[in-house]
Amino acid sequence: MIKEDLQVSYDRIRPYIHHTPVLQSRQLSAMVDADVYFKCENFQRSGSFKIRGAVNAILELSETDRQNGVVTHSSGNFAQAVSLSARNIGVPAYIVMPSNAPEVKKAAVQSYGGQITLCPPTIEDREKNADRIRLEKGATLLHPSNDINVILGHGTATMELLEEQPDLDYIFGPVGGGGLIAGTALAAHFFGKNCKTIGGEPAEVDDAYRSLISGKIEKNETTNTIADGLRTNLGHHNFPVIQNYVEKIVLVSEAEIVQAMHLIWERMKIVIEPSSAVPFAALLKEKEPFKNKKIGVILSGGNVDLANLPF
Amino acid sequence: MIKEDLQVSYDRIRPYIHHTPVLQSRQLSAMVDADVYFKCENFQRSGSFKIRGAVNAILELSETDRQNGVVTHSSGNFAQAVSLSARNIGVPAYIVMPSNAPEVKKAAVQSYGGQITLCPPTIEDREKNADRIRLEKGATLLHPSNDINVILGHGTATMELLEEQPDLDYIFGPVGGGGLIAGTALAAHFFGKNCKTIGGEPAEVDDAYRSLISGKIEKNETTNTIADGLRTNLGHHNFPVIQNYVEKIVLVSEAEIVQAMHLIWERMKIVIEPSSAVPFAALLKEKEPFKNKKIGVILSGGNVDLANLPF
Repeated sequence: MIKEDLQVSYDRIRPYIHHTPVLQSRQLSAMVDADVYFKCENFQRSGSFKIRGAVNAILELSETDRQNGVVTHSSGNFAQAVSLSARNIGVPAYIVMPSNAPEVKKAAVQSYGGQITLCPPTIEDREKNADRIRLEKGATLLHPSNDINVILGHGTATMELLEEQPDLDYIFGPVGGGGLIAGTALAAHFFGKNCKTIGGEPAEVDDAYRSLISGKIEKNETTNTIADGLRTNLGHHNFPVIQNYVEKIVLVSEAEIVQAMHLIWERMKIVIEPSSAVPFAALLKEKEPFKNKKIGVILSGGNVDLANLPF
Repeated sequence: MIKEDLQVSYDRIRPYIHHTPVLQSRQLSAMVDADVYFKCENFQRSGSFKIRGAVNAILELSETDRQNGVVTHSSGNFAQAVSLSARNIGVPAYIVMPSNAPEVKKAAVQSYGGQITLCPPTIEDREKNADRIRLEKGATLLHPSNDINVILGHGTATMELLEEQPDLDYIFGPVGGGGLIAGTALAAHFFGKNCKTIGGEPAEVDDAYRSLISGKIEKNETTNTIADGLRTNLGHHNFPVIQNYVEKIVLVSEAEIVQAMHLIWERMKIVIEPSSAVPFAALLKEKEPFKNKKIGVILSGGNVDLANLPF
């Protein structure tokens, strides 16, 4: 059932996404004594994996719902992904953004055809404005991670990776709101051959790590991490998936994230955002159990502010 | 004859090099109203195209010459390329480097097995030391650009590009010491279908531009460009090739180089060094004649100091 849902999702989103390349680096593989395959979603349309889930959720809508459009609140990659997906499917997209969002993010959303509503930079204002637009326009609210169609869409990156490398022993992915790691774990379970999923999470925003211990959804107390895509909390749709299908979550420090990001830029010559470096940082940190294994690593996105690099 | 030499060069260097990918960006193609194909030598082994010429020159040596090793003086990509090529072919490599070369460059040469001799940072001292080693060891001196086998080896990047995109109207390459642009122009002429070669050169080191006008090899008066791979002068082997086979050289300012580099990092999510941005800067500057054409752009390398970016 889940396997079929993943397959249906992949088949329908294919025309709207890039099949991203899988890259290797001899040097980085040697550093962890393993065979590492990087799935490069930094080369994905809109600059991150988020378009996979956005397209999948929009394609699930009825014709009437599509005409009324979709609404989301985001200052990051999901805003761009929804804008581009909606334009390509022919659906209006209303994007609520905090007034202090970087100009470059606003410009990107606009260039993809998203209709921006600015609001005060609090989560309450963002939700209130998104809800107002939802009611006014009859638009459907899209959540970036706590939505089953978004989770299934995000999982398709791992399906592509396993198509190329069917024998992976492990897949490492980043843990933020939980949508990507949940989708990754489902795809690894249903399309891999005993392929296990490991999450990398910044120690500064360790809600998922603590949630797995306590057995209930814990909240982050700060958002004090450079990995700006991973500051959000788990949701009730993805937490049970993570409980059932994610083998382990490894916490990494800010310095470890920056070091992994630097290594990937320097050795692989690709631009990834800090959140993307978290899974490889986790592998670098805890390499012993993964020695001589075949390992996939999801590089989730490449939307980084080049004027504000950590090195 | 030249066509056969190129083919022989390509066939023999293939086991030692990566077949690098060709990437496109809708956004960058749209900016110049053309269909642009980027040949990504930033993903090449040792981080730049230079390994193509280095391998080709070393494979040309007799068994005795190989045993005696090769020597070069370089603080940049050629030092790394010669070290890695020599190690993989099983030949000793002696690398003369200026004492003020960045530690990261020395470490890279060492990691590839090159035997470093440090010398005072003047061109005279570099040449004197290289010559001393040549005599002491019986080693063969390799020149990074003014050597016919190096030129032929460098041309193989364009052969690969034309294999994937046979109908290119133009290929843009960077102009420094002249080895890459000469090889590019030969490959474009003999393997393309009326494919013309355009050089991009920093206005601050415009020796090639002036040489084409005066009909003799002109020297750079300064090395004042961020494109550190393009500060050297043309040589007597590559200048005649450039005169005969390069259609035009376009000069670009430092600001234009940085802007093109930023665009490629931001939109394509890849790391290129400043020299690599020069050909695309040239296309951005003079786009009118190239409208609606199919254009190849050689991205020559990705060895950049991440701690000293121009943005």
